[in-house]
Amino acid sequence: DITSTQYSRIFNPDLKNIDRPLDTFARRHLGPSPSDVKKMLKTMGYSDLNAFIEELVPPNILKRRPLKLEAPSKGFCEQEMLQHLEKIANKNHYKVKNFIGKGYYGTILPPVIQRNLLESPEWYTSYTPYQPEISQGRLEALLNFQTVVSDLTGLPVANASLLDEGTAAGEAMLLSFNISRKKKLKYVIDKKLHQQTKSVLHTRAKPFNIEIIEVDCSDIKKAVDVLKNPDVSGCLVQYPATDGSILPPDSMKQLSDALHSHKSLLSVASDLMALTLLKPPAHYGADIVLGSSQRFGVPMGYGGPHAAFFAVIDKLNRKIPGRIVGISKDRLGKTALRLALQTREQHIKRDKATSNICTAQALLANVASSYCVYHGPKGLQNISRRIFSLTSILANAIENDSCPHELINKTWFDTLTIKLGNGISSEQLLDKALKEFNINLFAVDTTTISLALDETTTKADVENLLKVFDIENSSQFLSEDYSNSFPREFQRTDEILRNEVFHMHHSETAMLRYLHRLQSRDLSLANSMIPLGSCTMKLNSTVEMMPITWPQFSNIHPFQPSNQVQGYKELITSLEKDLCSITGFDGISLQPNSGAQGEYTGLRVIRSYLESKGENHRNVCLIPVSAHGTNPASAAMAGLKVVPVNCLQDGSLDLVDLKNKAEQHSKELAAVMITYPSTYGLFEPGIQHAIDIVHSFGGQVYLDGANMNAQVGLTSPGDLGADVCHLNLHKTFSIPHGGGGPAGAPICVKSHLIPHLPKHDVVDMITGIGGSKSIDSVSSAPYGNALVLPISYAYIKMMGNEGLPFSSVIAMLNSNYMMTRLKDHYKILFVNEMSTLKHCAHEFIVDLREYKAKGVEAIDVAKRLQDYGFHAPTLAFPVPGTLMIEPTESENLEELDRFCDAMISIKEEINALVAGQPKGQILKNAPHSLEDLITSSNWDTRGYTREEAAYPLPFLRYNKFWPTVARLDDTYGDMNLICTCPSVEEIANETE
Amino acid sequence: DITSTQYSRIFNPDLKNIDRPLDTFARRHLGPSPSDVKKMLKTMGYSDLNAFIEELVPPNILKRRPLKLEAPSKGFCEQEMLQHLEKIANKNHYKVKNFIGKGYYGTILPPVIQRNLLESPEWYTSYTPYQPEISQGRLEALLNFQTVVSDLTGLPVANASLLDEGTAAGEAMLLSFNISRKKKLKYVIDKKLHQQTKSVLHTRAKPFNIEIIEVDCSDIKKAVDVLKNPDVSGCLVQYPATDGSILPPDSMKQLSDALHSHKSLLSVASDLMALTLLKPPAHYGADIVLGSSQRFGVPMGYGGPHAAFFAVIDKLNRKIPGRIVGISKDRLGKTALRLALQTREQHIKRDKATSNICTAQALLANVASSYCVYHGPKGLQNISRRIFSLTSILANAIENDSCPHELINKTWFDTLTIKLGNGISSEQLLDKALKEFNINLFAVDTTTISLALDETTTKADVENLLKVFDIENSSQFLSEDYSNSFPREFQRTDEILRNEVFHMHHSETAMLRYLHRLQSRDLSLANSMIPLGSCTMKLNSTVEMMPITWPQFSNIHPFQPSNQVQGYKELITSLEKDLCSITGFDGISLQPNSGAQGEYTGLRVIRSYLESKGENHRNVCLIPVSAHGTNPASAAMAGLKVVPVNCLQDGSLDLVDLKNKAEQHSKELAAVMITYPSTYGLFEPGIQHAIDIVHSFGGQVYLDGANMNAQVGLTSPGDLGADVCHLNLHKTFSIPHGGGGPAGAPICVKSHLIPHLPKHDVVDMITGIGGSKSIDSVSSAPYGNALVLPISYAYIKMMGNEGLPFSSVIAMLNSNYMMTRLKDHYKILFVNEMSTLKHCAHEFIVDLREYKAKGVEAIDVAKRLQDYGFHAPTLAFPVPGTLMIEPTESENLEELDRFCDAMISIKEEINALVAGQPKGQILKNAPHSLEDLITSSNWDTRGYTREEAAYPLPFLRYNKFWPTVARLDDTYGDMNLICTCPSVEEIANETE
Ligand SMILES: Cc1ncc(COP(=O)(O)O)c(C=O)c1O
Ligand SMILES: Cc1ncc(COP(=O)(O)O)c(C=O)c1O
Ligand SMILES: O=C([O-])O
Repeated sequence: DITSTQYSRIFNPDLKNIDRPLDTFARRHLGPSPSDVKKMLKTMGYSDLNAFIEELVPPNILKRRPLKLEAPSKGFCEQEMLQHLEKIANKNHYKVKNFIGKGYYGTILPPVIQRNLLESPEWYTSYTPYQPEISQGRLEALLNFQTVVSDLTGLPVANASLLDEGTAAGEAMLLSFNISRKKKLKYVIDKKLHQQTKSVLHTRAKPFNIEIIEVDCSDIKKAVDVLKNPDVSGCLVQYPATDGSILPPDSMKQLSDALHSHKSLLSVASDLMALTLLKPPAHYGADIVLGSSQRFGVPMGYGGPHAAFFAVIDKLNRKIPGRIVGISKDRLGKTALRLALQTREQHIKRDKATSNICTAQALLANVASSYCVYHGPKGLQNISRRIFSLTSILANAIENDSCPHELINKTWFDTLTIKLGNGISSEQLLDKALKEFNINLFAVDTTTISLALDETTTKADVENLLKVFDIENSSQFLSEDYSNSFPREFQRTDEILRNEVFHMHHSETAMLRYLHRLQSRDLSLANSMIPLGSCTMKLNSTVEMMPITWPQFSNIHPFQPSNQVQGYKELITSLEKDLCSITGFDGISLQPNSGAQGEYTGLRVIRSYLESKGENHRNVCLIPVSAHGTNPASAAMAGLKVVPVNCLQDGSLDLVDLKNKAEQHSKELAAVMITYPSTYGLFEPGIQHAIDIVHSFGGQVYLDGANMNAQVGLTSPGDLGADVCHLNLHKTFSIPHGGGGPAGAPICVKSHLIPHLPKHDVVDMITGIGGSKSIDSVSSAPYGNALVLPISYAYIKMMGNEGLPFSSVIAMLNSNYMMTRLKDHYKILFVNEMSTLKHCAHEFIVDLREYKAKGVEAIDVAKRLQDYGFHAPTLAFPVPGTLMIEPTESENLEELDRFCDAMISIKEEINALVAGQPKGQILKNAPHSLEDLITSSNWDTRGYTREEAAYPLPFLRYNKFWPTVARLDDTYGDMNLICTCPSVEEIANETE
Repeated sequence: DITSTQYSRIFNPDLKNIDRPLDTFARRHLGPSPSDVKKMLKTMGYSDLNAFIEELVPPNILKRRPLKLEAPSKGFCEQEMLQHLEKIANKNHYKVKNFIGKGYYGTILPPVIQRNLLESPEWYTSYTPYQPEISQGRLEALLNFQTVVSDLTGLPVANASLLDEGTAAGEAMLLSFNISRKKKLKYVIDKKLHQQTKSVLHTRAKPFNIEIIEVDCSDIKKAVDVLKNPDVSGCLVQYPATDGSILPPDSMKQLSDALHSHKSLLSVASDLMALTLLKPPAHYGADIVLGSSQRFGVPMGYGGPHAAFFAVIDKLNRKIPGRIVGISKDRLGKTALRLALQTREQHIKRDKATSNICTAQALLANVASSYCVYHGPKGLQNISRRIFSLTSILANAIENDSCPHELINKTWFDTLTIKLGNGISSEQLLDKALKEFNINLFAVDTTTISLALDETTTKADVENLLKVFDIENSSQFLSEDYSNSFPREFQRTDEILRNEVFHMHHSETAMLRYLHRLQSRDLSLANSMIPLGSCTMKLNSTVEMMPITWPQFSNIHPFQPSNQVQGYKELITSLEKDLCSITGFDGISLQPNSGAQGEYTGLRVIRSYLESKGENHRNVCLIPVSAHGTNPASAAMAGLKVVPVNCLQDGSLDLVDLKNKAEQHSKELAAVMITYPSTYGLFEPGIQHAIDIVHSFGGQVYLDGANMNAQVGLTSPGDLGADVCHLNLHKTFSIPHGGGGPAGAPICVKSHLIPHLPKHDVVDMITGIGGSKSIDSVSSAPYGNALVLPISYAYIKMMGNEGLPFSSVIAMLNSNYMMTRLKDHYKILFVNEMSTLKHCAHEFIVDLREYKAKGVEAIDVAKRLQDYGFHAPTLAFPVPGTLMIEPTESENLEELDRFCDAMISIKEEINALVAGQPKGQILKNAPHSLEDLITSSNWDTRGYTREEAAYPLPFLRYNKFWPTVARLDDTYGDMNLICTCPSVEEIANETE
């Protein structure tokens, strides 16, 4: 029931009804009040929401299938939600001590970072820092991350995070493959890689027919022989290895020499904590070093989100996947940070892209880098030494004759692999450890177990472990001191983290101020709307975010046995059902941890299905020219040939062209990828026809769910006939963008695809998927970024059947209202006099191309908006020279009007520029940083006043966010790529 | 062991020792690193901390009695602390449903306010907004609070909070008494006041020989007769009354008429939630309305902190106790807020003061006002209606014949008092309610119980309550609708909260932004140091703050039976022991909830002791002229005659004068009040001599513990020989200042005073104090602001025996270092060439008086510091024309240097002004708000550039906090006192 009356009901509780709490979450989530809605409808000539929606959504699209959410129909109220979540959460065994390791370790998130970064909306609601002038804070935190990675790995160039260790390994393999111009089809991996990494590598290798060869690199001669094969593009070794052993640096050297002899690459999967003590891989010739930064303060969270890191040698600096923060200068010559090399990103290179990574793990990279800032090099090395000491105590006790068990690895940092003696099975030992000491170990096989210590391990834990292994006179072992006995052969001798930033903020006061300072430079949803088309920057409510730092959810190892994670099971199962109900699908996988990964997974599932039908030859993917860059990039990663489909004048899909292309490629047609409503923000009525066409030629239909926020409760990809879609939980379902990640991107599928959904190689999927037809893993963890799932869960359950459809309805109301206000001032793309379209969906495009010839670029408007205190809309996607505006349902009328007023005011400035008035330069000089306003001496020549620059509208005097630097010089930054903090020497030289 | 070596140990863990965690909290709390300390010592010519301390603290003072804290000697690490606190916390019964009422109610703190205000260091670490240009955010929130109070009570003037309802009632009584020029010695109270309010009134009445007469105001004729007595200064009625009944407005009118007939005052203790529906007391002639705003979102927290409110008629606007935010204008004519009427505050009026309130409950007032902003008038009234509806269901069921019990009150809002039938005792019923339904009720007497419903009450709760009362066919009662049956006679007819601010921020996004906007205007410890002498603005660490919002501590009613609050008992008992160990005393009371209340309590305890010795005539209190204004004010409130004692040239106490005065008043000598180290920040060696003098004349010695931060582990009031001291937990023991409260101020006493420590009238003190000799309560709740005690507890336990003394040592190192750097540029008071003093203690005084004649005032320096991004030091206390600087131990060398650099740079500006250079006006125009810099057109005439105004030092370009308004016009504000948000009409008129 989508009427204005129903909307009023949400806001005005019926006091007679005492069955439900007074407050609904929906009335807090949805921005406009019922009277705002009335006003907005009136502006557009409607008297009721229902009429508006019926006019807006084509009748063949508007299905209104009632949602069947597992929640009260009006939704849980906030207090109920927290209680409900607590009940679920308590079903997870979070007080057990995990020594499972294998890529996930206990860690201590310093409370000052928890409260002032991870739990701070100023940090978690911001977007990827594409607008550097209002993002210097998180750019600096990310630069710190890159510096940590670069410093610890010894490699000069690091990126600002990848999704997880497994996909980072995949990127390393593909980078090696690409460097060989796709000629070397063999890739070698060490036997002692984490199992989940191997699984992801197999997934990633398959579409390119890369043969993965597993060798035991501790048999160095044999390994070198294999690596010398000129068909080998590279090799990935884990250092320290999954069993805990450490390959000696000179063995590593031999591996890299062998590879380098024919220009192939050595990649090393490593552990940043270990690297604070270990010789850096660069020293023995590693070309790529990757891994997870999880144990730098990021909770395990049942597998994610964590920031993977990725560093390369200088030669590869323009090949590195993902985002890189670089140091540049602003218009006034002041040092400033920005995302470098954007011209190289997948959204530009499309199907030529060598990676599909887009959203990464910025928030977690920032936690990890802040952890390093807080501990400093000495603090980190002390933590490492302690871990090594305690591990050594245990290792030596086990190696002692009195111990019935046998230590397999003779070298270690934190991990021990133990062959059990006395006829004890792994199962028995794990059982004993759990029952008697509340300890989880890892079973390698039926008679071998492993364990890993970490920052949280105490002496008492080691005592318990000694007891688990029946070691007598533990006090003798415990009294030995290994803090200085880290083997010289492995020990790094250089000083780490010498940059000032790692030495200045070790007191809590200093750290608090540092985080606050960074935060205050970034525009986030706590400041003003971020109307980024296609990104859906809606409210990330406090209640949704609270469970993230509950230990019941955060302190869970992804490999804990299923009976210990029943809370996650309940949560995930119910979330899956709700998402299937919303999308109209039958099955779902929560494993992909970004939109692009969702796309990739969906396409791989499609291919697996086709293969199972004997249609392996189908390898063409039709993609409209308007598609987001990740679509063709993901298709390319999935080994598909991308065939573009045209769009018509009015923005709709060219169905004739679609049909022609489908026909032309009918034999090889694997799939079509469509975004719906289209990336132009339009509900084309032809979508079902398009779907039918592709189906008729035996292709599958993939729907990019980035625009799901226009569909919820109104229509759905499933109802429209698609076979797969992915959801960006970080858009439609309230997971915050975190300044560039984390994400969450389940794929939903029709029943025929369910058997092909990805499995996991280490643990069974607790939701029961995964079988012989399953594809290999697409993420390291079974449920990807599991820790953020409670956010979407809470969002859905609090909105309820009655509230949820209004998220889409109001999103579209807001967007159409803005378009209505702006259309007298700007040309709107597609929805204009030249077309029959009257409405946009949840976003619309302002067309600025006509001004280009007169010197006004879309970017000028984007930058000038910063002077009005706003983040720019999406720039140049899907159409260059345009801005795409998506307000979302969480903005109220006041904010929409403020933004429209700003745009209208800017229009006058455009006019001035076009007319050649000096005042027009206000656009070219935008944004005006405080330093510009205060210290620039050329105001008399500018043609406009400081006041006009800073306070073009009255509200800004009371409430304005200030850009901290002037407009960035993109070219300078790309020409002079610097992507780590300046070293002490560099600073010294500069100040000389 | 206070040596540099030991300091290094705190920062550099011994890796061999695996018994303890690596990180110590002390190294996070203490700002300077060991190498900083070395540098600072060197600057001052010392090679070791020990030598520094031995030179600084006079040998007869430096006791170094080892602390015996109940904690690991090195202190708990942060993780241990949280675990330990959780264990304690879980001993509190926090999941029981409380229907106890009596001034404390369940409430829902909206999560967006919890996270972005109560849990935000930007809000909780700021100081009382004495510097309005950098405090506009919380001033606005406090203005909102005043507006809510004014609106709901119907009275034009409200203050920005008092400590609790009981002390607010005390203030009302004393205000009435003072209006009578202390001539009318009778004060009437309604029988149906909360018991704890009565108790505090008795405490407050005694020193003034006010006779409290209790009448039953429901017998209106009799009551009117009593009130007509011209010796009655006023009357306090509770509305709704403690039993739940509501006196009809026309009865109230009769009471006020009776009082007004001889110019006495009617005070009403009320409930803001009820007032959203009830006729406002102003309408029937109330002169004063007071109460608690706790149920507007502030957790019960075992009794506090909560903000009491206090509103008066226009005629009393300059008599109202506490702080008032007023609307004024800045130098440029822009509307700006400030604390009004400061000239009227106790720190000016000293012993002529009519109240001793200083620190109040700003943080909680801000929570309450934000709760109103978020719910708006309709939301609040809906909550009230729901409460009334559910109460009515219950009332009607109980009144029904089938119910064996009898409803006592025939009118109600949320509270019912029930005479039990069927021979059931209160004990039995409470027992049943608890065991069967997990419900707490309140026993009025052996056969009468009461209960109060609140915002958290659900239908299910009412069903349970019906069962508790053996009411059959509950569904019949539950189906009745009372949402519109609030009795017309009581119902208010005016619209409430019409101001815009209560209508704009109802979505979470809007509220988040509003809070963020306010926050961003306020300088807090998250920005830079706040070197307020005597205020000890040290780190309030995250771990210390986290438990505040745990339900285990926050969701506890102060009247829950002792077996339900064993967690609090354990925490309080241990904290008491530690504080006694630190101060060298034998007993303690945690009841006082501000420093001034501590003073008052200490003096009352002294008088009670003297009285018990038959020395009731002793009524003289010696107080040095340098004392904080609260000292004489508190003495006056305690009925003591203040006799000032001189200070010598060098700042020390004039012992000759002391002896003379003591001798002169030997018969009546009750006590001396001394601050140690003195308010001048000096360790005078003569303190023990002073103490002996006073003792020798039979007086008691009160030590104001505001400067305890210089003593911990080095010396103590107890060791020096004092009889009582109060501690400002909100200074020395890390409770944040909250923008002007909460506080926590235990008094510690020698054994002879223990029997006189305050008791509580409703519940027994769980720590066992309180007996026949006890004074009546000084706060409404047994342990005052109990919820903030975990902060001090955690601080002490994490610092440990080894770390805690360094808080004092480093505080003094920091202060002496700054003094050393500044003394070449500024005259330091007392520590200069003219004296033998080489050192200050933890604070020092910069003397600016010499410049006054040349046109430079201390306030100019204070305001100019804002341009450097700093909060001013304490201005004009203890000496006019000076600034008192206290850096605390949490600031590191970098920050100290930044501040010193700023002061030194300002010195040059002073020189310019003194020399008559136009550039000197930079001081007079300070602070320079952004609007000034950007929109003022007179720069060419200013004699200095924008750059010099805004960026006088290079670091400011990277990191600067901006004042949001220019210098406030104090006179304008006081002449035109406006202390509520402008109404809709006023805004309309203004914009016309
Ligand atoms: C239409 C569309 N598809 C896919 C993506 C990729 O999602 P992600 O950034 O999570 O990889 C985006 C991201 O903005 C998008 O807008
Ligand atoms: C020396 C001294 N005594 C007493 C007080 C009063 O404490 P409170 O503000 O908590 O009432 C203060 C407050 O700053 C003070 O500095
Ligand atoms: O709070 C003070 O008045 O110092």
